[in-house]
Amino acid sequence: MSDVDDKLVGRRLGWRRVATRWPFTTPWIRLRQDDVELPDGRQITYTYLDQPPAVFVVPVTSEGQVVLIRQYRYPVDAWCLEVPAGGSHDQPGVDLTELARQELREEIGATCVELEQVASFYTSNAHSNQESYVFLALDVELGQEPVREVTEQIEIVPLPAAEALEMARRGWVSDGPSALALLLCEEYLRRRGYLGPDEG
Amino acid sequence: MSDVDDKLVGRRLGWRRVATRWPFTTPWIRLRQDDVELPDGRQITYTYLDQPPAVFVVPVTSEGQVVLIRQYRYPVDAWCLEVPAGGSHDQPGVDLTELARQELREEIGATCVELEQVASFYTSNAHSNQESYVFLALDVELGQEPVREVTEQIEIVPLPAAEALEMARRGWVSDGPSALALLLCEEYLRRRGYLGPDEG
Repeated sequence: MSDVDDKLVGRRLGWRRVATRWPFTTPWIRLRQDDVELPDGRQITYTYLDQPPAVFVVPVTSEGQVVLIRQYRYPVDAWCLEVPAGGSHDQPGVDLTELARQELREEIGATCVELEQVASFYTSNAHSNQESYVFLALDVELGQEPVREVTEQIEIVPLPAAEALEMARRGWVSDGPSALALLLCEEYLRRRGYLGPDEG
Repeated sequence: MSDVDDKLVGRRLGWRRVATRWPFTTPWIRLRQDDVELPDGRQITYTYLDQPPAVFVVPVTSEGQVVLIRQYRYPVDAWCLEVPAGGSHDQPGVDLTELARQELREEIGATCVELEQVASFYTSNAHSNQESYVFLALDVELGQEPVREVTEQIEIVPLPAAEALEMARRGWVSDGPSALALLLCEEYLRRRGYLGPDEG
């Protein structure tokens, strides 16, 4: 088990990991299975996705437009409103700020001046160990050529910041982590004056 | 492929599913792998979690307390603030309102008078086909004996509604779908007067 990190030993509660396997792995997804001893001594097997951190980037132009995307997602067979996002699966140890810049460039052909880490959350804590980091990208400029993967079918949807937040609040941003990322940026956007005097 | 539902044929975009396998299955998790033809004719394999719908329930007492929980989550080795939630994995076809009532009863020993479906979102649309449904449970009463699974270690955390929402807004509700569920209920809670005059 020398290649196993120590983070998931469960020592905070005494869930003792007895063994770890990775029963199924592709270049994009990795299933992990731990034999675990519970505090009462019972032994269980816990299976979950072993995923590196992800970033969700809320891009704002200097005119106060939030740049959403509409992306086709095969697992749910739907076009989803989202923010640019991505995992670090093919770049272990990558700096998350750098990853956020990459996703901006690759998914929407954008650069930004400032990048602020706003919050983090667990994407789906019963089935995955993934942590998602929310970044607010400021003074975003579009116009470069996106560099998309073969499965990335994406349209760019710029909206006034207040409108983008309203869509998240009403449940119209169907990708959950993207909706949460937008709402977690609300206070930051308000402080910087992007939500207009009525919202202040 | 007679046991395959037709939902994921991808006809809206022309992603044509050629074959489906379930290469790894436990009673709690099921990995699905589709061979898919993209619109440009290229063929890829897409692997993702095949998950039934989940419910996230925001419980509110008649005094305006939101009942959060603190739950240990093994995959992230952390105690997380959450709302009662669960998937329908062992009850295919269960009515989601009934599932929401079950989760209230089993996780926090509560009943409710009214249950309103507020919104839905995709939990993690690149890696799972799961849809999450948000319910607002009103006139919640605690006091029954919870019926928890062996892995469910849960503490009950009742908070004034405004405070629970503030925690979600600040990123302190570390389970992402729970944080989003709370924020999606904000307008409903305000309309019903649970957020007080300052928030109205």
